[in-house]
Amino acid sequence: MPHIDLPEGVPGIRSAMAFRPETAEPLCLLAETLLRNENSLSRGERELIAAYVSNLNECRYCQSSHSAFAAAQLEGGGELVEQVKRDPASAPITPKLRALLAIAAKVQVGGRSVTSEDVEAARQEGATDIEIHDTVLIAAAFCMYNRYVDGLDTWQPHDEELYRQRGRKTAKEGYVTMSKEYLPQQEPTTQGA
Amino acid sequence: MPHIDLPEGVPGIRSAMAFRPETAEPLCLLAETLLRNENSLSRGERELIAAYVSNLNECRYCQSSHSAFAAAQLEGGGELVEQVKRDPASAPITPKLRALLAIAAKVQVGGRSVTSEDVEAARQEGATDIEIHDTVLIAAAFCMYNRYVDGLDTWQPHDEELYRQRGRKTAKEGYVTMSKEYLPQQEPTTQGA
Repeated sequence: MPHIDLPEGVPGIRSAMAFRPETAEPLCLLAETLLRNENSLSRGERELIAAYVSNLNECRYCQSSHSAFAAAQLEGGGELVEQVKRDPASAPITPKLRALLAIAAKVQVGGRSVTSEDVEAARQEGATDIEIHDTVLIAAAFCMYNRYVDGLDTWQPHDEELYRQRGRKTAKEGYVTMSKEYLPQQEPTTQGA
Repeated sequence: MPHIDLPEGVPGIRSAMAFRPETAEPLCLLAETLLRNENSLSRGERELIAAYVSNLNECRYCQSSHSAFAAAQLEGGGELVEQVKRDPASAPITPKLRALLAIAAKVQVGGRSVTSEDVEAARQEGATDIEIHDTVLIAAAFCMYNRYVDGLDTWQPHDEELYRQRGRKTAKEGYVTMSKEYLPQQEPTTQGA
């Protein structure tokens, strides 16, 4: 049972967002910016980094959700995602993505674990500064999202088909749309920008 | 030296935000919402949770910054902040805040470390569901900010006086103002809200 009085029947981070819409807004905006906005890393690749870190943090809800989002947007589908989570070293991904996943794994342990050699290895495979930055921040952000979901002991369904359905929806609509589900209907204000 | 080409002479997270203003915006909005918006926990108490978690993560920049922000907004000042970081069990704080700091310490290890007993103990001391939620999310968020700052190996000055000066400024102006320093000057648009 969740540690606090979260809405029933709403899974994972979505229940926490419904409980506290004020923080849902920046959390969804951050996910949208990192995982969906224009980027030289594809949406599928970025979701794969999110799924990989969530799996390292053993967060069922986040790893199932972002595995489904990645599978819906990668040519290799769910099988590739599982291979990467099992062993990125042998999975059929680009050397650049493999080097970025190695940085993400270091960030999961702690920021100070990332070495100049890790970064140089990614750069040798063609990673840009922005790609390295975004990998570090995606990995760091999922160390937050995972702790948020598990720290409140949110309800996390075991039925993988639910995640796949949701994965297709979120892959299409994105995270900002998701946050709007939970925001109270607001009267238009005249506060301006 | 930072792992990527961050602006010189700009410390910690501020250099990463200047490098990538797109993500600076949600990151600052999240900090503002969690640490400064209206709340039954005072701003000083919330900054103390942030400083405490950053200290556990051994992130020099974040722990010095948020210690300074907390000191600027707590009656006990810097001495109280140091006592809490050394040993929250013996520091002269309320039992409620002590129980919330214990939850924050569990979140720092991992979300699944938080037990029903930890939460019940905080509730016994008068903590509300929103206070428990916000403590979990503040602790989780600093597991992100700390990894971001250290994962890029940002420049982190050793002179504590710099942090105190900045602490007074941020305590007054907040985090959203801070993010605006880094955003490109934008033409007004007609896109609306």
